[in-house]
Order: sequence, then structure tokens, then C-alpha cells
Amino acid sequence: MNMLAPYKDLRVLVTGGAGFIGSNLAHRLAGRCAELTLVDSLIPEYGGNLFNISGIEDQVKVNIADVRDESSMDYLVRDKDVIFNLAGQVSHLDSMHDPYTDLEINCRSQLSILEACKKHNRRVKIVFAGTRGQYGRPERLPVDETHLMWPTDVNGINKMAGERYHIVYNDVYGVRACSLRLTNTYGPRHHMRTSRQGVLSWFIRLALEGREIPLFGGGEQQRDFNYVDDVVDAFLLAAASDRTNGQVYNIGSGAAVSLREAAELAVQVAGQGSVRVVEFPPDKKKIEIGDYCADFTRFREAVGWTPRVPLPEGVGRTVAFFREHRQQYWEED
Amino acid sequence: MNMLAPYKDLRVLVTGGAGFIGSNLAHRLAGRCAELTLVDSLIPEYGGNLFNISGIEDQVKVNIADVRDESSMDYLVRDKDVIFNLAGQVSHLDSMHDPYTDLEINCRSQLSILEACKKHNRRVKIVFAGTRGQYGRPERLPVDETHLMWPTDVNGINKMAGERYHIVYNDVYGVRACSLRLTNTYGPRHHMRTSRQGVLSWFIRLALEGREIPLFGGGEQQRDFNYVDDVVDAFLLAAASDRTNGQVYNIGSGAAVSLREAAELAVQVAGQGSVRVVEFPPDKKKIEIGDYCADFTRFREAVGWTPRVPLPEGVGRTVAFFREHRQQYWEED
Repeated sequence: MNMLAPYKDLRVLVTGGAGFIGSNLAHRLAGRCAELTLVDSLIPEYGGNLFNISGIEDQVKVNIADVRDESSMDYLVRDKDVIFNLAGQVSHLDSMHDPYTDLEINCRSQLSILEACKKHNRRVKIVFAGTRGQYGRPERLPVDETHLMWPTDVNGINKMAGERYHIVYNDVYGVRACSLRLTNTYGPRHHMRTSRQGVLSWFIRLALEGREIPLFGGGEQQRDFNYVDDVVDAFLLAAASDRTNGQVYNIGSGAAVSLREAAELAVQVAGQGSVRVVEFPPDKKKIEIGDYCADFTRFREAVGWTPRVPLPEGVGRTVAFFREHRQQYWEED
Repeated sequence: MNMLAPYKDLRVLVTGGAGFIGSNLAHRLAGRCAELTLVDSLIPEYGGNLFNISGIEDQVKVNIADVRDESSMDYLVRDKDVIFNLAGQVSHLDSMHDPYTDLEINCRSQLSILEACKKHNRRVKIVFAGTRGQYGRPERLPVDETHLMWPTDVNGINKMAGERYHIVYNDVYGVRACSLRLTNTYGPRHHMRTSRQGVLSWFIRLALEGREIPLFGGGEQQRDFNYVDDVVDAFLLAAASDRTNGQVYNIGSGAAVSLREAAELAVQVAGQGSVRVVEFPPDKKKIEIGDYCADFTRFREAVGWTPRVPLPEGVGRTVAFFREHRQQYWEED
């Protein structure tokens, strides 16, 4: 299946385009679609990093703007065929410390983007990046899309609302939209300056620095990790099919592992670092979700997606990338 | 059961206190609690109406303020024992035409109130007014709390988020909170200037004016109507029990009726008006939820609440109230 074939003549906008998943999507699409515009605010604490688009600078338009800026978005959505809507505040803990910023980015900005499309471009297709955080603590595993949404933190609530706006604008105004509820994504071009944006990539940084990886409470919590290339596949397939309009889908790996196993794998592949059990920090404990594993049958049946990169291979590629480029991601800290 | 006994020494705050449910709650509590403060912005299009508190002016503190005003709320929540959190934008159609205002009131303001309690008054108990609109189009009837939330409009989405903030602040910060998911409430002191705030009260106005009641598409949609006194009971019981902390509950009547039956009852009780089938307005059709009927077993088991006022009796009381006070609710229009 050539996932890129449908994009040949399309104009594509990626919000959060200098961020982790957005930039990996941009690398895949660069030169293979009619026009590729990346919007990113480059807020230092978030995931945007211009090095993420090195090598494709000549094939993309980079537009520095904040999705909270209504008039910029009002202009940027025009004439686009597809919007990959990835801009977001992703830290669970930050959402508790500053719930208003999380609200502005994850709720209000989504409304601005959708209102802009309603006014100026109802024929666009939008794929929104939802999150397994919308489910909160699972009451059964694996989690499918009929599981109740009981987010344990403000971030999960705002993502839940942001996703649902997309579906309502699809149903009421015909602005075609769907959502992928991502689980833990890892891989090259992840934000690596803090531990707040992705646990496995952070473990890989610690291993590459020869440091100890702290496992809160033993690290027995199960997580479902997706390598970023598989997530990029999912976005490409979701946007290209009208069957996905108005739908929400889980993605996942099909095989959850414990944080301990993930950390040990990072140490083993890196050949450095170590693992140590520490006490659960109280603020994290309160919003901890326990085990998570996704059932992605609905999405597989809709578009034929399956993850292709096994965890050891994905960790290997990630270690190789950051070993080469660490100075771009954390060394000047 | 004396529902008011627990309130004797308590300081109570009602947001939306000059509105429909808030003012009925105030009439019940006035003189029966240690202190009763009503906050209302009196935005003309919304439900607040100072006539709603006539007769109890000397027993309440009325504080005109908007729940969007963070610093006012920051002050007003202090030293309160109970907050009945009823302020909201309730029109489904308005939320589609102006989604930002709905977001500000139904999401952001809830965060402000909760942040204020987190900072200044963690021992308060809050009862939030949720809505059956959070469920969207039911996939089974009656709807219990395990039904997925699939709101069909922006209002339902923002109420869903606003409710969940309460539960997260309960779970993470110990700010005790619960939510009642209200269905169609009707009765004295409802906003009657427009059709946007409550279908049965609006039918009663039309009947009292001898006008035709338009039934969109035949009026066969089932609705679950609660008389406001029963809803007041529910709020009083929910706040007085710690068993409700962190919980969400449906309330309902136990017997759904069609909009046609409700309209015919209004005409019959008023002895005026008539009923006419009209086409469904397209903007309302798109967000129409079909039939709704609540399963309120969970709430009955938690606090012993059951609705006490049958529909014909409630309509009779409502007709009598508005026949006497119509000039305060719409006649100067």
C-alpha cells in the first residue's frame, strides 16, 4: 500500500509541525504532496524544535504562529486539503499546575481552528491527535472506544473536549474530521529537555547519558508504546479515507509492556545507564492511570493500519538517532 | 426526611442564584441556613431575574458578579460550606453560534471556581449542575451513568468538561464535588423571554398567551421532565452527603413523555392555546438528540432521592405561577 499516493496533489497543513509527531509526518510528506505548511509556536518548553525539520527546509513552508492566535489560523486553514492537527500542550502535570494554558491550547484553539474551517474551508479533512489520557484509569483492558472517558487530569479533560468539537463540526457543518487517540509515542525528534513529554524517549536520554532511570513505585505499570513512524502511518491513512469522517479511533501496539521492561530495554540497547526503583512522587501518583493497553481493532478495520515497528527495533532506531543528534536535543542545556 | 436540617449552620453560595433553579433553591434555603449568598451576572439573555428572589430579599446576600470574573470568585468562595454551582450558559443553539462564550462560561469559569476553592477553601462541598446534553443521542434507554458521552453540540461538550474538572479536583485536591446531570427542568421562575432555555416552560407561556405551540417534526421525541422542586431536593440531598463526593448522577422523572404530550398538557391545563406540527428547523435538527429518558437508580440508592411532583401537578403549579406573574417574565417585552 502506498500511503503517500493520495497526497500527490494535496495541500497539507500540520499544526505543531516542528514538534515530535508533526515533524516526522513532515519528513514523510516533504516533496510528496503539492504543498506542505508547518505551523508551530516554538514555545521553548513544548515540543517544537527547528532542528526537527533539518533536511527538508526547502520542501516545507514554516509558519511560526500560535494556534491560540485566531486571526493567523483563520488565514492559514484556507485552501488546505488536509490538516493534521497536532499542536497541543501534552504534559499531564503542567495541566494541573496551569490549567488555563492547557485550556487555551487544547480546547479554545481547537474551536478557533474549527471555526476558521467552518467559515473558510468546509471541504478540508482534519485529523486530530487525541490521547489515551481521555480514558483515565481503565476499568478493563484492552481499552476500546466504547470505554467511558474518565480523565484523571485537566489535560485529559481538555483533549476530550477538543476531540469532541471536531466530531460535532463534522456532524453539524460537514467539516470532515476524525480523531486518533494516541498512546505513548516514542522515537526520533521527541522533545528531550524534560521528562514531561514522553516517558520512553526520556528513559533513552537517561540511558545515553549513563544515568539512572527512576522507576516510580517499581515501574510495573503497563504502557502501550507506538513508534512514531507507525503513528505517522496512522495519520496518513486516517486523512486519506472518508470512512473515518466523524469517527474516533484508538491506536496501539498490540502488546503492552511495563515501564520497567521499557527502561531495561533502553539500558540494554544503549549499553549504558541503569534502572532504580524510587518512590512515587505524590503529584504524579494522584493522576497516575495504572495499566493501559489499546484495542485498535476499529481503526485496523477502517483503514487497514497495523503497527509495523516492534519495540526493540524502535528503541534501536531512537537510540541511534539521539546518539547522533544529542547536541540538538539536550546537550546545550 | 428533613432535607433542610443539615443546612442550619452552613454558609451557602449559589452561582446563578437569580436564575431558574438557583432562585428556587434560594427560596427553599432562605432563613434556614446560616448565610445564603447568591451570585448572578444578570446577563439579560440568560436566566437571572431579580424578581426571582422577591420575598426573600432580606434573607439573602445578592452579589452581582460574573463567574468569568476570577478575582470576584476567588473572594466569594472563601468561608463557604456548600457551593451550588448552577451558573451556566444553557442554550444549545447559542453554543453553536457563539462557542467561545459557551466555553468561557461552562469550561473556563468552572476552572476558576475550582482553582479558587483549591487555593482558599478545600473543605467546601460543591454540587455542579451537569446536563443530559452530555450524553448526546442516546444509544439505549433509559440512560444510566455508564452510557458514553457523545454530546451533539458545543454546550454538551463544555458541560462535560466542566463536570469532569469538578471530579478531578475532588480526586486530586480533596475539594469535595459531585455532579447532577439534569434533564429537562421546568417550573416557576424559569426564563420565559425566549424559547432557548426550557421547552416545557416555553410551551406554557405560549399556551397562556393563547398562541400556537409549534411541534418540530411532529413532537414525538420523548423527554424526561423534572419539576424544579424535585431538582431542588436533589441538590440539597447531594450536598449533604459525603457519599456523593467524586460521583456523577442522573436525575429524571421515571416516566418520559413526548413533546406532543407535554404541549397538549400545557394547553389543557392553561385552558388556552393550541398545538401545531411544523417542520424541523435545520439548525435545531442537526443537534437534536432524539428520545431521552434517565435511569436515576444510582442517585436514588446514594441519597434516597425520588421525584415527588407528577407532570400534571407540576404543570398546574407552573401555569398558576406564570398566570399571576407573567408581567415579570415576559409582558414588558
